[in-house]
Amino acid sequence: MASDLIRRLYETWSKDDFSELDSLIAEKYTIFSDPGDAWEGQTLDRGTYRNRLLYSRRAFPDLVFDVMQLIAERDRVAVIWKASGTHLGDLRGLPATGKRLGFSGQTFYLIQDGKAAGHWQVIDRLGFIQQLQG
Amino acid sequence: MASDLIRRLYETWSKDDFSELDSLIAEKYTIFSDPGDAWEGQTLDRGTYRNRLLYSRRAFPDLVFDVMQLIAERDRVAVIWKASGTHLGDLRGLPATGKRLGFSGQTFYLIQDGKAAGHWQVIDRLGFIQQLQG
Repeated sequence: MASDLIRRLYETWSKDDFSELDSLIAEKYTIFSDPGDAWEGQTLDRGTYRNRLLYSRRAFPDLVFDVMQLIAERDRVAVIWKASGTHLGDLRGLPATGKRLGFSGQTFYLIQDGKAAGHWQVIDRLGFIQQLQG
Repeated sequence: MASDLIRRLYETWSKDDFSELDSLIAEKYTIFSDPGDAWEGQTLDRGTYRNRLLYSRRAFPDLVFDVMQLIAERDRVAVIWKASGTHLGDLRGLPATGKRLGFSGQTFYLIQDGKAAGHWQVIDRLGFIQQLQG
């Protein structure tokens, strides 16, 4: 089911074992909209998707996502999520601050052939930056 | 249907005729989560909800919302929306800049007894501020 697929995707984003990734993500994954994301507008192959995930987990090695709400209809799944982690690695040129950060977002996923094939996402980046600078 | 209800709500946010509002909004409307919103965490009566809408339409008198995607399940509706308007009125102490702004967000609505009774929302406020300051 599409909702289980997306829950498993958040579990993979919350650990360093990426072995499930190929069963969750389509060979081509499009970031249709994700303001402020370095990959916005791009279609990623699996290696690039994996690099995107690695990038987040290197900046926040204890990164954990919680799915707060999830609904599904046809080929779309919509999610409210929260994440938290400690900023222990480089974040786009910003050296580790050691700060414990929490941030939240909402995401629509496109599901194709039982896998996630893309997303439209909005993250509370203003709140995130305020925590980093605070 | 819940999806039609939410589409009509965005139409009401896009015009100065609020006559439909009582048929769309529950007597108590809770803003469960909406980072950066002045009413976040509050439960609004209809008068307060109307003031919130008026506040936005005074800051952006030509404000128009477009529903880009919408899915519904049980008592929830999830929406991707875009908005645009000209900043012609006071915005939390910031005087009118005359700038034409576009901004986007995602929202989950709680539906109760055929009306919208609350929301969880994330707006791209960083992009919004960058346009205001740019």
